[in-house]
Amino acid sequence: MLKIGLLGAGRIGQVHAVNIVAHPQSELVAVSDKFPEAARSLAQAHGAAARTTEEIIADPAIDAVLIATSTDTHADLMEAATAAGKAVLCEKPVDLDLKRAVDCLARCEPHGRPVMVGFNRRFDPNFASLKTAFDQGEIGKGELLSITSFDPAPPPVSYVKVSGGIFRDMAIHDFDMACWIYGSVPEKVTAIGSSIVDPAIGEAGDFDTAITTLEFSGGRMAVIKNSRRAAYGYDQRIEFLGAEGLLVAHNVLENTVEKITSAGATKAKPEHFFLERYAKAYQIEWDSFVQGVQGKGDLPVPLKDGINALVVAEAAALSAREGRTVDVAREIKS
Amino acid sequence: MLKIGLLGAGRIGQVHAVNIVAHPQSELVAVSDKFPEAARSLAQAHGAAARTTEEIIADPAIDAVLIATSTDTHADLMEAATAAGKAVLCEKPVDLDLKRAVDCLARCEPHGRPVMVGFNRRFDPNFASLKTAFDQGEIGKGELLSITSFDPAPPPVSYVKVSGGIFRDMAIHDFDMACWIYGSVPEKVTAIGSSIVDPAIGEAGDFDTAITTLEFSGGRMAVIKNSRRAAYGYDQRIEFLGAEGLLVAHNVLENTVEKITSAGATKAKPEHFFLERYAKAYQIEWDSFVQGVQGKGDLPVPLKDGINALVVAEAAALSAREGRTVDVAREIKS
Amino acid sequence: MLKIGLLGAGRIGQVHAVNIVAHPQSELVAVSDKFPEAARSLAQAHGAAARTTEEIIADPAIDAVLIATSTDTHADLMEAATAAGKAVLCEKPVDLDLKRAVDCLARCEPHGRPVMVGFNRRFDPNFASLKTAFDQGEIGKGELLSITSFDPAPPPVSYVKVSGGIFRDMAIHDFDMACWIYGSVPEKVTAIGSSIVDPAIGEAGDFDTAITTLEFSGGRMAVIKNSRRAAYGYDQRIEFLGAEGLLVAHNVLENTVEKITSAGATKAKPEHFFLERYAKAYQIEWDSFVQGVQGKGDLPVPLKDGINALVVAEAAALSAREGRTVDVAREIKS
Amino acid sequence: MLKIGLLGAGRIGQVHAVNIVAHPQSELVAVSDKFPEAARSLAQAHGAAARTTEEIIADPAIDAVLIATSTDTHADLMEAATAAGKAVLCEKPVDLDLKRAVDCLARCEPHGRPVMVGFNRRFDPNFASLKTAFDQGEIGKGELLSITSFDPAPPPVSYVKVSGGIFRDMAIHDFDMACWIYGSVPEKVTAIGSSIVDPAIGEAGDFDTAITTLEFSGGRMAVIKNSRRAAYGYDQRIEFLGAEGLLVAHNVLENTVEKITSAGATKAKPEHFFLERYAKAYQIEWDSFVQGVQGKGDLPVPLKDGINALVVAEAAALSAREGRTVDVAREIKS
Repeated sequence: MLKIGLLGAGRIGQVHAVNIVAHPQSELVAVSDKFPEAARSLAQAHGAAARTTEEIIADPAIDAVLIATSTDTHADLMEAATAAGKAVLCEKPVDLDLKRAVDCLARCEPHGRPVMVGFNRRFDPNFASLKTAFDQGEIGKGELLSITSFDPAPPPVSYVKVSGGIFRDMAIHDFDMACWIYGSVPEKVTAIGSSIVDPAIGEAGDFDTAITTLEFSGGRMAVIKNSRRAAYGYDQRIEFLGAEGLLVAHNVLENTVEKITSAGATKAKPEHFFLERYAKAYQIEWDSFVQGVQGKGDLPVPLKDGINALVVAEAAALSAREGRTVDVAREIKS
Repeated sequence: MLKIGLLGAGRIGQVHAVNIVAHPQSELVAVSDKFPEAARSLAQAHGAAARTTEEIIADPAIDAVLIATSTDTHADLMEAATAAGKAVLCEKPVDLDLKRAVDCLARCEPHGRPVMVGFNRRFDPNFASLKTAFDQGEIGKGELLSITSFDPAPPPVSYVKVSGGIFRDMAIHDFDMACWIYGSVPEKVTAIGSSIVDPAIGEAGDFDTAITTLEFSGGRMAVIKNSRRAAYGYDQRIEFLGAEGLLVAHNVLENTVEKITSAGATKAKPEHFFLERYAKAYQIEWDSFVQGVQGKGDLPVPLKDGINALVVAEAAALSAREGRTVDVAREIKS
Repeated sequence: MLKIGLLGAGRIGQVHAVNIVAHPQSELVAVSDKFPEAARSLAQAHGAAARTTEEIIADPAIDAVLIATSTDTHADLMEAATAAGKAVLCEKPVDLDLKRAVDCLARCEPHGRPVMVGFNRRFDPNFASLKTAFDQGEIGKGELLSITSFDPAPPPVSYVKVSGGIFRDMAIHDFDMACWIYGSVPEKVTAIGSSIVDPAIGEAGDFDTAITTLEFSGGRMAVIKNSRRAAYGYDQRIEFLGAEGLLVAHNVLENTVEKITSAGATKAKPEHFFLERYAKAYQIEWDSFVQGVQGKGDLPVPLKDGINALVVAEAAALSAREGRTVDVAREIKS
Repeated sequence: MLKIGLLGAGRIGQVHAVNIVAHPQSELVAVSDKFPEAARSLAQAHGAAARTTEEIIADPAIDAVLIATSTDTHADLMEAATAAGKAVLCEKPVDLDLKRAVDCLARCEPHGRPVMVGFNRRFDPNFASLKTAFDQGEIGKGELLSITSFDPAPPPVSYVKVSGGIFRDMAIHDFDMACWIYGSVPEKVTAIGSSIVDPAIGEAGDFDTAITTLEFSGGRMAVIKNSRRAAYGYDQRIEFLGAEGLLVAHNVLENTVEKITSAGATKAKPEHFFLERYAKAYQIEWDSFVQGVQGKGDLPVPLKDGINALVVAEAAALSAREGRTVDVAREIKS
């Protein structure tokens, strides 16, 4: 039974808490949060203790920590936790600053503890099925990958300003998916962006709509479409053209009911946002971490993969700014 | 080049006229109608002559007639045309009276001319694909066939009164489909009906909604659902459960466009009625007739099949009337 | 916090145990089973005690029992539990014998305790959405309801012999759905059956394939198709034709991935069987029971509804045996 | 009745011939081809005369010509035909050389005759429905348009060498669709390409796979994915994200049959190639030309639109070559 400390009792921390508790091989023993009341409330609901982050990291009885705090604390906490001998599952991104993320990797590695980044989408059963089908050769050589990733509504501009921008904050999930599916990092990145959804996002120096193309070795390509607003909910789809066919992971709909009237045939919308769409993915993610820490199978999403996604985000931001293709190896230092 | 006389210049006659003209091996030479003006107008549009039915049947230069007149004239015209040595394609049903239909068969057969009944649905590319897949063993032994057959709106009560009733007029298409797909005639028929769509139809002694179950030899079954009203258009679907799987022929939609908004994901309705849904089927039906008459392949839908469908309709009407299963061989004389 | 005793630690008992434990307002305190080892093992996994059924029913600290034992014990246990003042959720069916079920209702009612029957499908989010849409008038007056209900594979013949037959054992779920959706009990029932899937089932006096039509007041109809074998998994669908349109609840597929190659476009099969398809329904069912017992909202699926479904099953069995429509009120005593 | 001369009796000329003949307001009077035998054969099949191109253009009895000859003759023939007072429908592209195309427009315009370019996809009922829905405001402001356009198999390298390259030859249809849907020409174009399908295409200086992003005024975007090979047939889809929702035009499948077995649920592939997919579009295109020439409604796809699509193709080719975004107004002279 793995004893877990949860750092961060916000929305995503609460999702993880339930999965930690429900897993037969993990036990939630302590919760911390910068708002002690939040930690107390969440701890109480699950029979755990509310403690400080420092206490949790220092407690030798705790085997692993799940970092669900604000992004600016991720790197420090990963370093402290691994130094204290703990396994770590850290929410994405590693850091908004690529150099800081690279340093973090360098500091964590010597401790030899498992460090996993929370790219939850890899654990979505639909995307995982697509990846498995591809790996089993069902469409032959992969040639053109397309990812559609739209949020239901833009975040507040105040969040946009500290988010690191659409590429580091939002598209980073999709960059990870592309690298994961192709099993490599792109050689070239080209991106365009606009702020057509909300001009205030443009005034804050960010885009709300973007298209990024990735060129992998051997002529393999990917294109990622991002928008901060899809009026119909969370649009999360993948298409992959290979030499022998096409794989598509369609959206997950709210239900299977169809109504057909003189106005047409209407089905449900996609699941509204990530908590609904990826509920199952979060469960599987946690199980994968638990298995990996226990040495059963590889640990998925090692910290290095979190760096790779950041590298692509950095390149995309540079490309969109300068209106040209960016050569990743030559221009982005990691 | 087959020279064709078209008997009947109404709605369905007009559909056939275009297909006769467009076919490279058939030529429309004459058109008749009980309203001479209708014959004239249709003939003129296609460079044919308007003549009387008697003239057409008597003309030795005409190879085949297409009978698209009112139902009560079908049997007489088939007999006269075959006696005059013509090949015949006759719209369904053969006759509303089973005995008259049986007599017609007996009188036509000695002339040795091809006589085909216009069960257009057999030529629908979707239903034909389902039939081919079944015949090729793709779902193993057929066990449970389901046919959904709803019209967009009920006909006028004046038509209902002379129609022969929902089983002989509407479900007869579906009875033919079931016999054709299974390749046999059912042993038992059980039907229920109501007039929930329009009580006036009930007052006219007919049903507007009916469910018929058919029992074929060896425990094979079929169920046919009929309604005179589907607010969304013409609902024409088949499902077939076999030992190794399910075949489904879905509706044909008006187009492939989907709109996804906060209200859901909306696609087009099914094609509105038979002229739209079966446009392609009518073309293929005509081509099949032309090929069959020319001795290329069997003539599909021989007159005998038209009788079989009537037998099932008779049994269904009797079953619904008496609230019991009807034994076809024992109770229906054909 | 509702304290729960679970009677029966078999497959379905285990499903319920997890939901009892996971629910914030219920606590699993005791488990019994005719195999004490099964009770011990399940109890241990969830921090509950293994006890005898008698002890659980006699324990005043237990608020409610969930009866997941074999069918022949249901009625006795419902009576004993309600007599002991407990709320009850009992798996379907109430009893294979209609008279015994009717007596059970008569004996339970005086104790005034909530007794709910586990018709899990009412809680399936898809079927519930269809029901809600209908109740909100989205297709107008309901006219023709169609239920497709196929199991992935037939049970062993040994089970078939004690099952009560396809109508009481399997179709009973669908009879409940039809009564629930229409909000009434049918006036007439007509059924046909065969043993085309496995002749041994026929030799055991049962059918493996059946079609039942139900006639409700006012000309409203339903048709239920049952097969013990769908090679592709658990086929659970509903279609409902109303005056203004059609509602369809499609199957739940294993995932959303589609593969398109020269062989066609392939999606996943339906979820394999009831544990997968109705996992969510069992959770919602339990929550509904907990809310109902606590007086928040009506208790869904009262015992009387379990009797009604049995009445229809009885009528269907009689109809299939005698080849005629059965008048429910006149012929089936309840 | 419009009298039509058809220039070019190849594959696409034959498609047009049938539509000209079938249209109630047009008559095919003459056919020419560089292979006189081809002209003779096609003319004979439709009761027309085989003549030389010069004779057709010089014949004052001919009202309009349809140019379906090789690309290098398009501009010359348009100029000659308009000078002779004829209306023209010319297959795309206007010319592979943008300057030549611009000159052609300048020379044709003074004659004041209708000149339409054969961008057949605008007439596809599905794409036209999407465009209509957008124009009617069903998804609000258009923000992100995605076009998928894959051929079933690459052309011979010999064709690739004279084709003008993937952007001028293949993507030009998609560029026209994007301009048509948005109602404007993009300001910036960025493209990437590779020859992953067939290295010989790369050696011939062309790409077989490409992604092009278009930036229209106000931050509106489009992305076009092209591949010369989709193992499953002709993949022709459009998605359009707007402020209030998403419009999707799905592929047209070969039929509506679905087979569900233990291996999954399989539907038909998309229609194989443009002759099947756009059969209906070619009919509607011809009708639109006939109506336009007769002054009923605007002539769709004026010659200027053919130039605009070429401008985008030119920009895309330049962008892919130089690895940077191209400013259309500043860099492409038209």
